[in-house]
Amino acid sequence: MRILRINTRTQEYAFEELGEYAGLGGRALTSRVVNKEVPADCHALSAENKLVFASGVLACTNAANSGRVSVGAKSPLTGGIKESNSGGQFANQMGKMDLQAIILEDKPEDGSDFSNIFISKDEVKFSPAKEIVGMHNYPAQEKLQEEFGKKAVTCLCGPAGEHCMQAATIQFSDPEGLPTRSAGRGGMGAVLGSKKVKSIILDPEVKGKAVMGDEEGFKAARKEWTDILRSHPVTSEGLPAFGTAILVNIVNEAGALPTKNFRTGRFENAGKISGETLAETITKREGKVSHGCHTGCIIQCSQVYNDKNGKMLTTGFEYETIWGFGAHLLIDDLDLIATMDRTCDEIGMDTIEMASSLAMAMEGGLIAWGDGPAALEYLRKVGTGDPVGRILGNGAGFTAAAFGVDRIPTVKNQSMPAYDPRAVKGVGVTYATTPMGADHTAGYAVCQNVLKCGGDIDGHSKEGNVEVSKNLQIATAAVDSLGLCLFVAFAVLDDERGVPCMAKLVSGLLGSEYSVDDVVNLGIGALQDELDFNRRAGFTEKDDQLPRWFTEEALPPHNVKWDFTAKELQGAKV
Amino acid sequence: MRILRINTRTQEYAFEELGEYAGLGGRALTSRVVNKEVPADCHALSAENKLVFASGVLACTNAANSGRVSVGAKSPLTGGIKESNSGGQFANQMGKMDLQAIILEDKPEDGSDFSNIFISKDEVKFSPAKEIVGMHNYPAQEKLQEEFGKKAVTCLCGPAGEHCMQAATIQFSDPEGLPTRSAGRGGMGAVLGSKKVKSIILDPEVKGKAVMGDEEGFKAARKEWTDILRSHPVTSEGLPAFGTAILVNIVNEAGALPTKNFRTGRFENAGKISGETLAETITKREGKVSHGCHTGCIIQCSQVYNDKNGKMLTTGFEYETIWGFGAHLLIDDLDLIATMDRTCDEIGMDTIEMASSLAMAMEGGLIAWGDGPAALEYLRKVGTGDPVGRILGNGAGFTAAAFGVDRIPTVKNQSMPAYDPRAVKGVGVTYATTPMGADHTAGYAVCQNVLKCGGDIDGHSKEGNVEVSKNLQIATAAVDSLGLCLFVAFAVLDDERGVPCMAKLVSGLLGSEYSVDDVVNLGIGALQDELDFNRRAGFTEKDDQLPRWFTEEALPPHNVKWDFTAKELQGAKV
Repeated sequence: MRILRINTRTQEYAFEELGEYAGLGGRALTSRVVNKEVPADCHALSAENKLVFASGVLACTNAANSGRVSVGAKSPLTGGIKESNSGGQFANQMGKMDLQAIILEDKPEDGSDFSNIFISKDEVKFSPAKEIVGMHNYPAQEKLQEEFGKKAVTCLCGPAGEHCMQAATIQFSDPEGLPTRSAGRGGMGAVLGSKKVKSIILDPEVKGKAVMGDEEGFKAARKEWTDILRSHPVTSEGLPAFGTAILVNIVNEAGALPTKNFRTGRFENAGKISGETLAETITKREGKVSHGCHTGCIIQCSQVYNDKNGKMLTTGFEYETIWGFGAHLLIDDLDLIATMDRTCDEIGMDTIEMASSLAMAMEGGLIAWGDGPAALEYLRKVGTGDPVGRILGNGAGFTAAAFGVDRIPTVKNQSMPAYDPRAVKGVGVTYATTPMGADHTAGYAVCQNVLKCGGDIDGHSKEGNVEVSKNLQIATAAVDSLGLCLFVAFAVLDDERGVPCMAKLVSGLLGSEYSVDDVVNLGIGALQDELDFNRRAGFTEKDDQLPRWFTEEALPPHNVKWDFTAKELQGAKV
Repeated sequence: MRILRINTRTQEYAFEELGEYAGLGGRALTSRVVNKEVPADCHALSAENKLVFASGVLACTNAANSGRVSVGAKSPLTGGIKESNSGGQFANQMGKMDLQAIILEDKPEDGSDFSNIFISKDEVKFSPAKEIVGMHNYPAQEKLQEEFGKKAVTCLCGPAGEHCMQAATIQFSDPEGLPTRSAGRGGMGAVLGSKKVKSIILDPEVKGKAVMGDEEGFKAARKEWTDILRSHPVTSEGLPAFGTAILVNIVNEAGALPTKNFRTGRFENAGKISGETLAETITKREGKVSHGCHTGCIIQCSQVYNDKNGKMLTTGFEYETIWGFGAHLLIDDLDLIATMDRTCDEIGMDTIEMASSLAMAMEGGLIAWGDGPAALEYLRKVGTGDPVGRILGNGAGFTAAAFGVDRIPTVKNQSMPAYDPRAVKGVGVTYATTPMGADHTAGYAVCQNVLKCGGDIDGHSKEGNVEVSKNLQIATAAVDSLGLCLFVAFAVLDDERGVPCMAKLVSGLLGSEYSVDDVVNLGIGALQDELDFNRRAGFTEKDDQLPRWFTEEALPPHNVKWDFTAKELQGAKV
C-alpha cells in the first residue's frame, strides 16, 4: 500500500511507500500523520494544516463492512485533532488503487480558484472546478459523472465547505453514485475548502486486488466474520428493518431523548418521527427500507426515503439527524426533517451540528421553537454568503455567541448528539473525554446503558461508566482503524468470536500473526496520538468536562444530573 | 469604604464591609472578587458570572488623576478574567459614596426587560429602562439626565451590550455628562447586558469625603505628585498638546504602525491622520485640544473634535482608534475615522476590536480595503439585530471564522492594538503573556522600545524585553489598583520620586506606613489572581503566544519577525 501526497499550491504530487506509517490504516493513520506532521498550534485553515484521507487496514479486502474512510486534520471547529468517519465507495476504491492514504498539503494563494483532483493509477490531474463551484452536491456530482464517468468514485466539498464553515462536511459518493455519505463532524469540509479543492475523483477503472499473505486463513476468517454479523439480532434484524431510527422510541422511552435543547428526555411526539413510522412511510411510498452505504455492507442500516410523490428525497437518514431536526427543535414532521437532511447533504453540512445551531437560533429568538419551515429556510442560507448562513454554518457555539445564548450543549465546541449525558452517563463520559469533542460514535455506551448489549450498566449512576467508556473508546479507535463499520460492535460485543475474528482477518491479509492485543494496541495508539496532539494544542482536563448547566439542571422525567468530577473523568483516557 | 452587592434577578441588595477585601481597590479588587467568587469554568453570560465595578484605592481622595474605574468579570471575549479600565466620573463618585466596589450578581430570567439601577447613599432602586433600550448612548444619556438630573453620574450598556456582543463596552459619563469614556476591552458591556442592566446611575447629591489618616502627610504627597506629573514633558506638554495621537508619526517612523492588517509597519498616508494634523484640525474648527476624562485630571490628553460645521463630533479620540480605523484598514480620512469613533461610543463598542473585525471583513472580501464609507455602514449594523452586525460585534476572531480568514491578529481571542509586536517586542511580550489577552495597556513597553522613556531597550531584538514587560505588567497592575491613570507612568518611570510618592499618597490616606514594596505587591497580587483564574479556566502556556504567522512573515520596512519561544515568554509572568 502507498501514500499519495498532493501539494494543493504547487499541484505537485508523489506516491510514497508507507514507511514509518506501515501497519496503520484508517483513524490510526490519519491521527498519526496529523500528530506528526501538523503543528498543533497552527490555524486549522492555514497552509500548515493537512487533510488526510485514509482507508482502513482491511479496505483492500472483501471482508464484510470494511469500507469506511477516515478523514483527519486539525479541526476548525474544535481546535483539536479530528478523525471524521464516513461510508461510501471511497475507501474500497482507495484499496483497489493500493492507496492507504491521500494527504492534501499546503494551500493555494488567497483568491485562487477551486480545482477538481482526478487520481488514477499513478497520476494526479488538477482541473478547474469553476462549473460546479457554489452548486449543490447532487447536481455537482452529476456534472462530475458527466466529466469523469458514471462510475466515478468521488468526494465533494459542498458550498458550506467552500465558505470554510466549521460545520462543513465532505460528502462521499455511495454505491448508486450519489453524494450522500458524510465525513460529518468537525468541519473537514472547511479544511478541504481552504485548500481550494472542490472534489477528488478516484479513477473507477483501476481495479487492483490485495495480495493475501494467507489466502485460506483470510477466507476462513471472512466467513466467520460474516456469520458473526448475521447472527446478532441488531445487525441482522433491527438495523436492516428500521435503520438507526429504531432508537427514537427506545431512547425516548429511556427518558434520554434530548428535547427542546436538552430540557427534557421525552418528546411527546416521538411516535411521529420513530423508526417504526419511518419504515412504514418508506414502505408505503415504495422506497427502500434496507440499503448499504458501501459495497460489501451486509448490515444495510441505510434506506431510501421517498417524498409524498414517490420521488427519492434522502438516504442515510440517521437517528441522530431525526432527533436533531426533530425532538431537539420540537419539530415532528418527518418529511420536513427528511428535507433538512437532504439539504445538509446538498450544502455539505453536519446534521448534528446544524441541528444545534438551529436550537441556539431558537434559544436566541431568531426562530420559534418547532417552526420547521423557518428552520429549513435558515438552513438553506448556509454556503450562500448570507450572513445568517455564515453564523449557523459555524455551529452551535458560534451561533450561541451571535445571539447571546449561554445554554450550549457542546464539548470542545462540538455539539452533543442525540443522547442526554445525564441519563446515559456512559456516553456522557465519552462526550467529555474523547479527543474528538462531543461524539457518540467515539465510545457508544448507549449499548450498555440503554440497549443492554455488551453488558448492563446503569446510565443514571456513575458506577462503571468511566471504565465502559474507556474500553469502548479503545475498541472504537481499533474498529475505525481497521476501516470497519462501527455497527459491527453490536455483534462483536456480544459474541466471543468477535475481536479474535477481527485479528484473524488482519492475520490472513498479512500472512503473519496479528493478535487480539495488536487490535487493542492499534486503538490505543490512535488515541495516544490524538491526546498528544490536543495537549500540544493547549487542551487540558478543563476541556474534558460538560458545560456546568448539566450539573445544575435535572433532566425530566428521571430528574438526573451530571455529577462526574473532572478528576474522575480523566480515568476514561488512555 | 463599602461594597455594594446587587442581585439583578431578585433586585435585593446589601451594603457590606470590605472585610477580606480590605486594602484592595481598582484592578486588585475586581480581580480578587472575580477569582474568588466566579467559577472559572462558568459561561461568561451565565448567572454565575459577576460584574464588578471598583474604584481605586485613591479614588476617595483628590490626588491628581486618581479617578479611573476598573470593571472586572469573566470575559465573554477571551474566556479568561478581565479588568477593563475607564475614565469618567464614576470612580470618584463611588469614592464620595464610600463605595470601593459595586458587584452585580445573578441574572434575570430569559426574556426579562432591561432595568436602570439608581444608587443613592444607602439605597438601590431598579426602574424599567424600556424607554432607552435600543437607543444610542448619547440620546440615552440625555434621557437619563432628564430622569435623574443633569449631574447624574452614569454608566450605560449600549445596543451592542444589549445584544451581548463580545466587543461591547460599558460607557461612563465624563465631566460634561456625555457617555464618552469606555471600559472598552473584553466585552464587559455584554456581561452587563446579560444581566439586563441598561444603566447604573450614581446619585450626584451624595458628596462624602474621605477621612484622611494623616491629613498633612497626604497633602504633602499630593503636592509632590502634582509636581511630578507637571515636570515631565510627556504628561505636561506632549499629551496635552496632541493627545495620544502624537504617536501616529512616531510609531510610523519606527516602522511599527500595523498597516493593512499587520502587513507592513508604515502607512504612506500616516500624515493625514497624525496627532499634528488632528490638533491643527481641532484648532481650526474651534474644538478643544486639551480635555480631561475625569475631574482631577491634570494631563488632559483628551480633546473635543468638531466636524466641518464646528459641531462636536467626538471626544477621547485615541491613537489606537485612529490607527485601527486608519492605517489598519488603509483609511486616511480623519473625519470619517472620528465618525467611526463616535459610532462606537454611541453603540458601545471597543474601537480596537471593531477595527480588527472590519480588517477581517476586508480580508474576507466583504468590504474593500480602504473603503471607509462601507466600513462605517457595517459598523452601524452592530447592535441592531442585523446578522452582519452580530458577526462584527463579536470581534476579530469571530469575524475571521465567519469569513474563513486565517490571518488573525489576536491573543486569547482579543485583538492586538496599534503596535506591531515584531517591531516593538516588549509590547509583544505583553500581548502574549498578560492574562488580559492582547493589550498594550497591560505593560506598555512602547516607552522603552520606541519613546526611550524609562530606559532604552531595542524593540527589534529579544534582549531585555521579557524583563521589561514583566516589570511593567506589575507596575501597571499597581497603578490600575490605586485608580491612577496609566499615563502617570510616563512621569513615574523617569522620576525617582514617582513610585515612592504613590506609596506616600496611600500612607497619607491610611495614616499608616505604606511602602514601595506594598505598591509593588498590590500589583503582583492582582496578576496572581488573574493568572490563577485563567489557569483554572483552562489556559496554559499555549495561550501565551502570538499566532504563528508573526513568526513566519517578516514586517517591512525593518523585516523583523517574532521569535520568542513559549518557554522564554513564561518569564514575563509573576
